[in-house]
Amino acid sequence: MSANVPKVRLYVEAALSAGATVTATAAQAHYLGRVLRLRAGDAVRLFNGADGEWRAVIADGGRGRLTLCAERPRRPQRPEPGPWLLFAPVKRAAVDLMAEKATELGAETLWPVVTGRSNASRVGLDRLHAIAVEAAEQCGRLTVPAMRPPVGLAELAAGWPSTRPLVVLDETGGGGRAVDVLAEVAAAAGEAPGVLVGPEGGWSVGELAALTALPSAWRVGLGPRILRAETAAIAALVCWQAVAGDW
Amino acid sequence: MSANVPKVRLYVEAALSAGATVTATAAQAHYLGRVLRLRAGDAVRLFNGADGEWRAVIADGGRGRLTLCAERPRRPQRPEPGPWLLFAPVKRAAVDLMAEKATELGAETLWPVVTGRSNASRVGLDRLHAIAVEAAEQCGRLTVPAMRPPVGLAELAAGWPSTRPLVVLDETGGGGRAVDVLAEVAAAAGEAPGVLVGPEGGWSVGELAALTALPSAWRVGLGPRILRAETAAIAALVCWQAVAGDW
Repeated sequence: MSANVPKVRLYVEAALSAGATVTATAAQAHYLGRVLRLRAGDAVRLFNGADGEWRAVIADGGRGRLTLCAERPRRPQRPEPGPWLLFAPVKRAAVDLMAEKATELGAETLWPVVTGRSNASRVGLDRLHAIAVEAAEQCGRLTVPAMRPPVGLAELAAGWPSTRPLVVLDETGGGGRAVDVLAEVAAAAGEAPGVLVGPEGGWSVGELAALTALPSAWRVGLGPRILRAETAAIAALVCWQAVAGDW
Repeated sequence: MSANVPKVRLYVEAALSAGATVTATAAQAHYLGRVLRLRAGDAVRLFNGADGEWRAVIADGGRGRLTLCAERPRRPQRPEPGPWLLFAPVKRAAVDLMAEKATELGAETLWPVVTGRSNASRVGLDRLHAIAVEAAEQCGRLTVPAMRPPVGLAELAAGWPSTRPLVVLDETGGGGRAVDVLAEVAAAAGEAPGVLVGPEGGWSVGELAALTALPSAWRVGLGPRILRAETAAIAALVCWQAVAGDW
């Protein structure tokens, strides 16, 4: 990266346009001022998921506040379509890791799905959003993945759109080889798939049968070793991007 | 998994044969007795990387000790060749994650490589071994990845065997598409590759030039987003296993 590209990149909620002034959150002000020791006049990059990426400069907002003043656009906004990650709420550390890595890997949507063997029922969507924001800032995305509220598996299956493939990670050995199946998925459909990963306890027989009865479902296996849920989620997103996505 | 396959799987250092008795470590005894509340007569599975997987039963070793008595073999030992992961020592949490996920993904060897921009020089090999053991227990491997002591990048390059491909993750955009390059690697070589991931600061120009001058080196890119080092390492191992490995 050339020297005149500001290293720091922040997601903001406010609209961005030339001259727009954004008040930094307390966390952003702490990070910029105390951790990085940036000062008024130093440049950063801002994005908000809607207005592209902007070069901005830090200004003293008075009373210890920092404001960020957008100067000029750096990258125009563009759609960032990508796979959806649908995951059973497992342990918190595993869910956090899925949110971070799925963001780096270009996931468009994160969606918890409650299954019969889910070993957790609550998911902190605000925490996941914060993790995704930080990962989006770091990896250069112009959007932050959308967070959907948890849904039951039966409800998900009943309402799943027929136009979007649903790639079910099947740890029972009944799925096809990932690169082959995903190449078929890409050839058959225009939309990136939803990738559905179950809980540590796996799918029940009934769940797997209901899922694979969906016309848009595909079953994928991920090799001979037993992968943790978060590893399986990451691996499936990697395979999609590598085979049919934006890599 | 059928009901008569013991759920618990432990790695031990001792030799395994019919009737062999293994004294559980303090950590294993705590885990079996206090966490899982298993008792004398309960069955577990043991492996040691050399003698295959064995069914064993817990016995009371007296004085609060647990012993594990090997009964009969369950799976014969077989070689588990796989990619090597070579990584610049980055932050501890990232290195820990690489060790765990590389084990799940079938890596044969973990090898820290000190580069010019490495932001850490020490790697706790004992800690990484412990993490790899736990991951191997969980994922069903019969071996634990070998840990090599850290090596400097120049020394690594000078001694790299010409028979083993070296896949260099190139974040500068100079690498080929992962699935294409790895398919070529697999066609050209009999051995699984070493996958080399640099530090967060990237390779220096000289390092990248020296690496790609190696006759067995291949440069791979991993898409348009900036991946953290541990994400890049995991992604490259997934791509190898999916394209040319054991998936």
